[in-house]
Amino acid sequence: MADETPEVTPIVWRDGKLLLLDQRKLPGKETYLMCRGAKETARAIKSMVVRGAPAIGVTAAYGLAVEARKFRRGSIHSDFEAAAATLADARPTAVNLIWAIERMRGLMGNVAEGSDPREVAAAFADEAQRIHAQDIEINRRLGSYGAELLNGGDVITHCNAGALATAGYGTALGVIRASWDGGRRFGVYATETRPYLQGARLTSWELTKLGIPVTLVTDGMVGHLFANRAVEAVVVGTDRTAANGDVANKIGTYQIAVLARRHGVAFYVAAPTSSIDLDCATGADIPIEERDPTEVTHISGKRVAAEYVSVFNPAFDVTPNDLVSGIITEHGVVVGDYKKGLAEKVATGRRARS
Amino acid sequence: MADETPEVTPIVWRDGKLLLLDQRKLPGKETYLMCRGAKETARAIKSMVVRGAPAIGVTAAYGLAVEARKFRRGSIHSDFEAAAATLADARPTAVNLIWAIERMRGLMGNVAEGSDPREVAAAFADEAQRIHAQDIEINRRLGSYGAELLNGGDVITHCNAGALATAGYGTALGVIRASWDGGRRFGVYATETRPYLQGARLTSWELTKLGIPVTLVTDGMVGHLFANRAVEAVVVGTDRTAANGDVANKIGTYQIAVLARRHGVAFYVAAPTSSIDLDCATGADIPIEERDPTEVTHISGKRVAAEYVSVFNPAFDVTPNDLVSGIITEHGVVVGDYKKGLAEKVATGRRARS
Repeated sequence: MADETPEVTPIVWRDGKLLLLDQRKLPGKETYLMCRGAKETARAIKSMVVRGAPAIGVTAAYGLAVEARKFRRGSIHSDFEAAAATLADARPTAVNLIWAIERMRGLMGNVAEGSDPREVAAAFADEAQRIHAQDIEINRRLGSYGAELLNGGDVITHCNAGALATAGYGTALGVIRASWDGGRRFGVYATETRPYLQGARLTSWELTKLGIPVTLVTDGMVGHLFANRAVEAVVVGTDRTAANGDVANKIGTYQIAVLARRHGVAFYVAAPTSSIDLDCATGADIPIEERDPTEVTHISGKRVAAEYVSVFNPAFDVTPNDLVSGIITEHGVVVGDYKKGLAEKVATGRRARS
Repeated sequence: MADETPEVTPIVWRDGKLLLLDQRKLPGKETYLMCRGAKETARAIKSMVVRGAPAIGVTAAYGLAVEARKFRRGSIHSDFEAAAATLADARPTAVNLIWAIERMRGLMGNVAEGSDPREVAAAFADEAQRIHAQDIEINRRLGSYGAELLNGGDVITHCNAGALATAGYGTALGVIRASWDGGRRFGVYATETRPYLQGARLTSWELTKLGIPVTLVTDGMVGHLFANRAVEAVVVGTDRTAANGDVANKIGTYQIAVLARRHGVAFYVAAPTSSIDLDCATGADIPIEERDPTEVTHISGKRVAAEYVSVFNPAFDVTPNDLVSGIITEHGVVVGDYKKGLAEKVATGRRARS
């Protein structure tokens, strides 16, 4: 981990144990849940104890590290693959999950079938901690590139792409923090982000902790906001961005982009290179997770909707690249030719790590 | 009242008593609240026991009828004006409220200061019942005009412009019902409509009762719906429509109209002439109510948002006339030149009542 403690610590690795801040209970309660293996970690990801693409990646890496202690000498490779498959299945849209598993798989090349599982576990723990520390560093770099795009006007963000969605610091909120820390003074509108209320529960909580003025609105108020208040930019995160710059992010993002375009407001995406998937040519190739109807019909465990109603509950949507004003990576901002620019940034990212 | 009983009865006048279905408790509980005077009626309107522009109008008329029994011989006119002011202040955006009060004020012209208040009360009760019965009849006529615009494809509606929002039958849902009853078979997407969840609680409930297939989505899913599912039209109600066809309706309507335009989908507004305000030249003249922040920060009485967060909670927004494909009144559909067309329909409405 980085040697400074971020204000919000969603993932803790302590004495070889993986502890996750249970984000389902925020902002009411701050409790940590221990994950003892790959299955428990996958369950935590699936049930949204931890969420946000970069945070899911770091968590999966640690999940493999705790599981590695249970690998059996003689079947280390198949045990690894079983654990990797369990984690990869947890959520389909965030590509960082696959990216982190691939990083861990890279270590397996040097591991003999008869190796001591404890040594593999130690190597995995080191690598997971590297991914964790790098993620915070990447967010800080991304934040400072993004801050250059903002001029002190009010900003809208959707869902939570903050410290809670990452190893710390945040992507979209990292851009906002960096701008604030650079001396700009502005307000942030956070959309509540139904059905999971990440904006109401998490983004509002984080920004309040940071002392950045935040105003909560419902998802239906964005158009009215654009029509009636001065807004300089929208800044959001991404769960997976395709090679052409089509952006998969939390459901509701696409329509904010459409509204931003109508009102001539810039729409920026904070995308660490780990969330860019060059294997997806366009957004149409990105799988969109559909989640349980009860997320919509119930709030805080209580039914709010009429009985017997059908529900459509996609967790993400795709914003086409023509609505995106710029994609902010840890290696700079890509504008215009996303296909060329994103490939370059991903290549730079790979070189930086090797 | 009309001689047939609508499936959902939001406003009941029985033995000189005004009973309102408490819509805050739907769909969980069906209980009725009695209003004994203008103040109680205004409080019921303000606190959304009853909501929806036409329903508010009918309720205000009955509220004056129950209050009229308390008018004092010798100060009948000032007592009426005090009661009218109390009711007019209850909610600012819905023009039907003012429209209904004006209808009742029309009766006061023939009332001498020394009249027997019981006679005034009887005349008011008759007039309120006429408004009530006319509202249902108006909705049915509006519904049949609107049904001619629909060709059996799936429809999106926002908030609740159903039987619950009117004296019965519904405006936007009246159009949907009339199409269904005419033999078309299609599905309806209902947006949940935060913060008050009228779509989840009321529209889903009404359509389920009517046997019309309804799928609930959150307000952030509309863009994704348009991009991924075949939708033929959007049909919504209105709380006040300006002379130029700018439409004030539940917050979130404007952005649905923007998205409908982007995806080439028709956007229709069901507007009884009582909701058309020729005194407002454009939408900019329509007052937009802002409601209590706790509607956003709390759900079912439980806090969901972080503490200390600011909230912006406008209850309505304005959809500019260029995004409106047609305005459906009880005297036919207006397309194109709204200024001319709406003035004609309002004049027809006035003639029909005189």
